[in-house]
Amino acid sequence: MELNPTIADPRLQLIATARYFYQQGWMVGTAGNLSARLADGSFWITASGKSKGELLLNDFVLISPDGKIEASATQVIPSAETAIHQLVYRLFPESLACYHIHSIESNLVSRLVEGDSLLLPPLEMLKGLGVWQENPYCVMPIFANHFQVAQIAADIEQRFAVTPPQISALLIRDHGFTVWACSLEAARNYIELLDYIFRYMVAAIRLGINI
Amino acid sequence: MELNPTIADPRLQLIATARYFYQQGWMVGTAGNLSARLADGSFWITASGKSKGELLLNDFVLISPDGKIEASATQVIPSAETAIHQLVYRLFPESLACYHIHSIESNLVSRLVEGDSLLLPPLEMLKGLGVWQENPYCVMPIFANHFQVAQIAADIEQRFAVTPPQISALLIRDHGFTVWACSLEAARNYIELLDYIFRYMVAAIRLGINI
Amino acid sequence: MELNPTIADPRLQLIATARYFYQQGWMVGTAGNLSARLADGSFWITASGKSKGELLLNDFVLISPDGKIEASATQVIPSAETAIHQLVYRLFPESLACYHIHSIESNLVSRLVEGDSLLLPPLEMLKGLGVWQENPYCVMPIFANHFQVAQIAADIEQRFAVTPPQISALLIRDHGFTVWACSLEAARNYIELLDYIFRYMVAAIRLGINI
Amino acid sequence: MELNPTIADPRLQLIATARYFYQQGWMVGTAGNLSARLADGSFWITASGKSKGELLLNDFVLISPDGKIEASATQVIPSAETAIHQLVYRLFPESLACYHIHSIESNLVSRLVEGDSLLLPPLEMLKGLGVWQENPYCVMPIFANHFQVAQIAADIEQRFAVTPPQISALLIRDHGFTVWACSLEAARNYIELLDYIFRYMVAAIRLGINI
Repeated sequence: MELNPTIADPRLQLIATARYFYQQGWMVGTAGNLSARLADGSFWITASGKSKGELLLNDFVLISPDGKIEASATQVIPSAETAIHQLVYRLFPESLACYHIHSIESNLVSRLVEGDSLLLPPLEMLKGLGVWQENPYCVMPIFANHFQVAQIAADIEQRFAVTPPQISALLIRDHGFTVWACSLEAARNYIELLDYIFRYMVAAIRLGINI
Repeated sequence: MELNPTIADPRLQLIATARYFYQQGWMVGTAGNLSARLADGSFWITASGKSKGELLLNDFVLISPDGKIEASATQVIPSAETAIHQLVYRLFPESLACYHIHSIESNLVSRLVEGDSLLLPPLEMLKGLGVWQENPYCVMPIFANHFQVAQIAADIEQRFAVTPPQISALLIRDHGFTVWACSLEAARNYIELLDYIFRYMVAAIRLGINI
Repeated sequence: MELNPTIADPRLQLIATARYFYQQGWMVGTAGNLSARLADGSFWITASGKSKGELLLNDFVLISPDGKIEASATQVIPSAETAIHQLVYRLFPESLACYHIHSIESNLVSRLVEGDSLLLPPLEMLKGLGVWQENPYCVMPIFANHFQVAQIAADIEQRFAVTPPQISALLIRDHGFTVWACSLEAARNYIELLDYIFRYMVAAIRLGINI
Repeated sequence: MELNPTIADPRLQLIATARYFYQQGWMVGTAGNLSARLADGSFWITASGKSKGELLLNDFVLISPDGKIEASATQVIPSAETAIHQLVYRLFPESLACYHIHSIESNLVSRLVEGDSLLLPPLEMLKGLGVWQENPYCVMPIFANHFQVAQIAADIEQRFAVTPPQISALLIRDHGFTVWACSLEAARNYIELLDYIFRYMVAAIRLGINI
């Protein structure tokens, strides 16, 4: 049985997760990218320009820890945002999965504040992100978007070297959000929880609820 | 045939209901917990930390009426909120199911008022909650959230000893809502009806409709 | 082949339509009721108290044109709103289907005006309701809700005797809406179109768009 | 194998796409129309008055480049908006697919401005529409709706002769939007991306976010 993502090919699980995210409206067009790391440090990442609702095994590229293409089908190129995944796995070596999606609510909350951090509301849901406190306090970093993905990656590296993030997640203004985790299931849960929290924030603001 | 929930193992029905609730966005991450009581007073409850969209039979724990673990798979622990389920079955002995979910709208309405009760709007839907009146009047209790679930349970017990709830449901601020009923189907219907009413309330307030 | 709804048993098609409406959130709890008329004037209507997501053939009752129960399973009673269906088939004898659902948006728009009529916005979608005009104008009647369904039916009969409705649909304040049509497909289409228009109206008002 | 849409019958793929769009709420009632062009310049278009959730092969009509019916089942007539598809294929001869849907958000944004152009917000998503810039700028043409589709087509032809559109898409006020592309997959992606952007715009305006 080769499907255990920590020891073997995680692509089938990535296909199922991408399809689920697509159905939620989080990966429209061909937006977003998912990756999973193998024991040797290389990682499978979704190819560029593929609909995430119908990925096939050939719609992934295997990337070495230093960013080289180790395996790919013909005429398939890795996601334009591979540099961010590569950085995440280098900065957080315990991570086995890195997911980047574009939910509408993540783009909205990225515009709710002008600064570079988003304070999350004190919902019970924060427990699922590892914040266990009587009155939970949690902030999430926001990065500016750039046409060149390498610039986004450089900004992340520079900031996290000084200020590691409180939770395993970051927002890019107008450009979705990214999570990483020590299992594919945990990364999916983080995506679900953060989108839930963003939806709550958007609705609460409309209602005049203090968040 | 062993699936009749009043006389035999209700776990398959709980798995299907949990999957349906998960698909509605009411049990994201691993949030929420469902239980069903057996004829001997023990109850099956969802285990802690499992995605509710893909539960297996081993993802439940059997709890005795006094809160002891009667059966569980290895490395599986009962929901952190087992104490609330145990209390519900003690206070309302005719109940055979207790469901707790975190819909976004339930968290929003818990913040719409500062007090400890929520007045529900006079929709025809209240009939489904047992409120049969020409001009229906229905209030739902709200409890404060606490990091320690035992504190929430103590608050519920203290309040219900003095003031039994009008309907079989309670809100926890920032922390979803809980229903109980004399069948699994009725508990699912209560969840659907209350989430509908909460959605209506949130939208009506945005439109300036008097509720 | 017995499934042609105009000549034979329409229950299978009603089961599929009810399941679809339930999945849209239009028939939560056990709300709403669907019926289809046979060539002899009798009609099958959903039974009271059944989840519309999992109806079986026995969850319907056959009603004669004068309101008597012609066939039903044991312990099954017809929808509490059978009188409205019976009236619709009497007033509009070309009708073969009558559907009543409770979408949230229908309840919201019923509260947007105080009077007894709702002006629909001039969307292209009105063509699907039979309104073919360069600048389409369409109003829909609103009825007050009453605890006794017989009172609602009496109000409908009295008003329609004086003022027939422009389209085959009526709103009941806080209590969903009802359509009728000369085929089951057309009735389903009317439900879809009206809910779409109600959703548009609710969103347009929030945006300050003149409707 | 005859399913390759560029060389053979594209109807099966159109059926699947129509069903997906219908499930998104973009083709309610029988609204909207999809077409795909063959190598000889003729195109298959959806027939008038059919539910887009359950199309069959006979629910399409084959139209010649000059607008004549080349093939159809009995009692099936082409979409009332065939003239717009015919025009699109003439103006943009590289196009192999043309899709027209009625999402609620497209109707809302068509009413947000009084003029004949809509400025899209600078989301990363614009890359999927072919807009690759550091600070992306993209406008989309809006046309007035008319009862006579021929008038809409004439307006499109007149305007595009002077000002070709920046992206392969146009809005009709109160009447959905239309895209065209060099493959069926690309046309579907454009629909998804534009609806996403419209949803973002509607939500951002409600939140007071500057778009």
